Amino acid sequence: MAVRLSPAARIELLTALLASFGDRATVNATQLEHHSHSESWHPPAAPDVVVFPTSTDEVAAIVRAAAKHDTPVIAFGAGSSLEGHVNALEGGVSIDFSKMNRVLRVSAEDLDATVEAGVTHRQLNKALANTGTAFWVDPGADATIGGMAATGASGTTTVRYGTMREVVRGLTVVLADGTVIRTGGRARKSSAGYDLTRLFVGSEGTLGVITEVTLRLFGLPEAVSAAVCAFDSMAAAVETVIATIQLGIPVARVELLDEVMIDAVNRYSNLSYALKPTLLFEFHGTSAASVTESVTAVQELTGERGGSDFQWATTLEDRTRLWQARHNTLYAALARRSGGKPWVTDVCVPISRLAECIVETKRDLADTALYAPLVGHAGDGNFHLNIIIDPANPSEYEAVKAFNARLVRRALAAGGTCTGEHGIGMGKKQYLIEEHGEDAVEVMRSLKRALDPHNLMNPGKVV
Amino acid sequence: MAVRLSPAARIELLTALLASFGDRATVNATQLEHHSHSESWHPPAAPDVVVFPTSTDEVAAIVRAAAKHDTPVIAFGAGSSLEGHVNALEGGVSIDFSKMNRVLRVSAEDLDATVEAGVTHRQLNKALANTGTAFWVDPGADATIGGMAATGASGTTTVRYGTMREVVRGLTVVLADGTVIRTGGRARKSSAGYDLTRLFVGSEGTLGVITEVTLRLFGLPEAVSAAVCAFDSMAAAVETVIATIQLGIPVARVELLDEVMIDAVNRYSNLSYALKPTLLFEFHGTSAASVTESVTAVQELTGERGGSDFQWATTLEDRTRLWQARHNTLYAALARRSGGKPWVTDVCVPISRLAECIVETKRDLADTALYAPLVGHAGDGNFHLNIIIDPANPSEYEAVKAFNARLVRRALAAGGTCTGEHGIGMGKKQYLIEEHGEDAVEVMRSLKRALDPHNLMNPGKVV
Repeated sequence: MAVRLSPAARIELLTALLASFGDRATVNATQLEHHSHSESWHPPAAPDVVVFPTSTDEVAAIVRAAAKHDTPVIAFGAGSSLEGHVNALEGGVSIDFSKMNRVLRVSAEDLDATVEAGVTHRQLNKALANTGTAFWVDPGADATIGGMAATGASGTTTVRYGTMREVVRGLTVVLADGTVIRTGGRARKSSAGYDLTRLFVGSEGTLGVITEVTLRLFGLPEAVSAAVCAFDSMAAAVETVIATIQLGIPVARVELLDEVMIDAVNRYSNLSYALKPTLLFEFHGTSAASVTESVTAVQELTGERGGSDFQWATTLEDRTRLWQARHNTLYAALARRSGGKPWVTDVCVPISRLAECIVETKRDLADTALYAPLVGHAGDGNFHLNIIIDPANPSEYEAVKAFNARLVRRALAAGGTCTGEHGIGMGKKQYLIEEHGEDAVEVMRSLKRALDPHNLMNPGKVV
Repeated sequence: MAVRLSPAARIELLTALLASFGDRATVNATQLEHHSHSESWHPPAAPDVVVFPTSTDEVAAIVRAAAKHDTPVIAFGAGSSLEGHVNALEGGVSIDFSKMNRVLRVSAEDLDATVEAGVTHRQLNKALANTGTAFWVDPGADATIGGMAATGASGTTTVRYGTMREVVRGLTVVLADGTVIRTGGRARKSSAGYDLTRLFVGSEGTLGVITEVTLRLFGLPEAVSAAVCAFDSMAAAVETVIATIQLGIPVARVELLDEVMIDAVNRYSNLSYALKPTLLFEFHGTSAASVTESVTAVQELTGERGGSDFQWATTLEDRTRLWQARHNTLYAALARRSGGKPWVTDVCVPISRLAECIVETKRDLADTALYAPLVGHAGDGNFHLNIIIDPANPSEYEAVKAFNARLVRRALAAGGTCTGEHGIGMGKKQYLIEEHGEDAVEVMRSLKRALDPHNLMNPGKVV
């Protein structure tokens, strides 16, 4: 796609931004490259300029300056998105949120907090230390809260604590013309008008730029326990998860890794788990007794399905090691193929269809030569393939593309979605239409036109 | 406001609808009157015709016929809304969903169900008997699921199981031009495109007509227990709730009634509760032990704040009686003033501000002559005043209007919302602007224009 700015307009815009932002506006080549892509296989596309605002008013000023020159703005958080969300397909201004990283307000009483969009979830949890509360959405990478809101992120604890769609209570958003609005609020619930908050959550920067986020927190559990359990077959592992969810046993995390992923994790994190389909559980409770109750119930379910004895991670240190290993699965997979590039994809299906969907997917993979370890938030029916491709081998790229299409269509046929948590970005636009139908996507386009008539907000993504 | 149809166009539309729907289209005066209002104080406004469709396709045909004559459509469920949502302000077609009352699909495995919009929540729960699952959103009145989705309803169990915004997974919607779309899906979560589901939830029929709803269910708790506890002061009762929520004790219901409401309930339901601020608790657990744990923790909190001993409702019959009495609070209040009309209002505030907000509100009420019993979903920071006015006394109407304005502004000043669950309808449009600001409401209006350019969908409501 073409860069929109003429050389003259580009100089005018750069001059204006440099005048306003000084060394917080840059055309440094390294910065432009860094802001041309995130952690995904999609072709990079550099912005014309990167600006580092420190306030919502500054973001509004950037958006107004860009709009004056009919050039796009792209919000950039931690750069950890997986479907090419930040790539500047038509050039323009990349708005880097790394200097908007203040935790503005924490209320332990109301279990909520307001943060600037550039705060990462680990940074927020550090700020919450000693408040007795925590923010629980955890997508693995240390993404920014703004980016997580924009993509509708979720992660390992969603089975208990929900997704960003459920925990974001309010937003500050800069619209395409630079107007600043506040959506939602601090009340636990509201029926006051259209739910603008949830319209912007998951809109991937295409309807407006999120600058502040009000979030629901949860109290820290009184008791926590985690365990690892291996199974002889993928079906047995998944059926254990299905039974756990259907019985309503309150697990806080239930993650599934296939034997390929376990092998990579063992090597990368110096662990020695059995090379089998494996579940990682975490249990949170208001007391040791309630955790024991959940553990006992799940142990019964694993035993009935031939699961191994639980390997416990009871100390905080052990648990941190366990979840760090889980969060490093992508790096573990990358380490298995030096020079490889990740192509990470995710789908989500109704949990009753999860076993067949994974078993068929692994059968499908066996017919390819792809290296594609599987890891998933099994309690939500959501799983990922961390495919590592050889960038020098175009046939491998084509093979992944074809596999991804089969995977998505298998998920859609099972009543699922083309992406449980990574979003549409550049990568899944065609599947969005297959999932929702042309008429529903046309509704999305009409919303886009209503809020961003000149297509300035992260163009080329979602719709 | 003017009825849009010219006499000639009206005859043409009626002829077309009668030809298609036979006796399922009616201009019977009793039916027109019945569809001119719901359970609220707002001036009634009759539609030109009422139609009883039996399928989404029929709804689409009605919408197309109405659009051809540039006349509005208004969806009508159980008629239990409280802000004049169904009043046909510009005439048009009232679409009555009472014949679209089929439960289309239940999956106990996936804990979800799909229903036609006219199914009521009690009807759904009857259909779920023996599945081990239940649908938990309970607004008191036996509202339809379609109406509950349209208003973003919640209720007594929201503190544990969420609002309609959280449990609706997908919708079938007829758009203003008669196009039928499906939003969302059956996966536990999705990041696929703009969240159309949550845009239509709470849009009060102004963006489209909801015809089918896919809902999240929950497993039935293994153990349930309910209790009543009276306090010497409103502050002590509310502070008990605040402590319960802040400690994360998993209550399933925690309802607050003031002494005025208790008096009305006692008389109406032949009960003998102490005439004091009173909490009704319900506890759900995966075992008797987990319920006992919660009960013990709450009993400690009530004791510390001077609460009475728990009066138990342990049998299903006792609990049904307790919650029936709670659900009949509006009728109980009405029975105290014969010939009175209800003016029910609700606000919701961050829970840390709930005590002061209620205490100030009761002080404010004491300065008026209004009969205004208070009842609330205290665990959510949400409370109602069931004001009963004398329709023959205009000064009372003015007094309520002024009181309502003070109440809403008190809630907004505390960081709350002008309506926790009743919606905007005709009644709270001004407060929507005060709450979100003119710019945010202008965004809502632009969405309305994008989806309903001719203002055919329930005009005069929300924006």
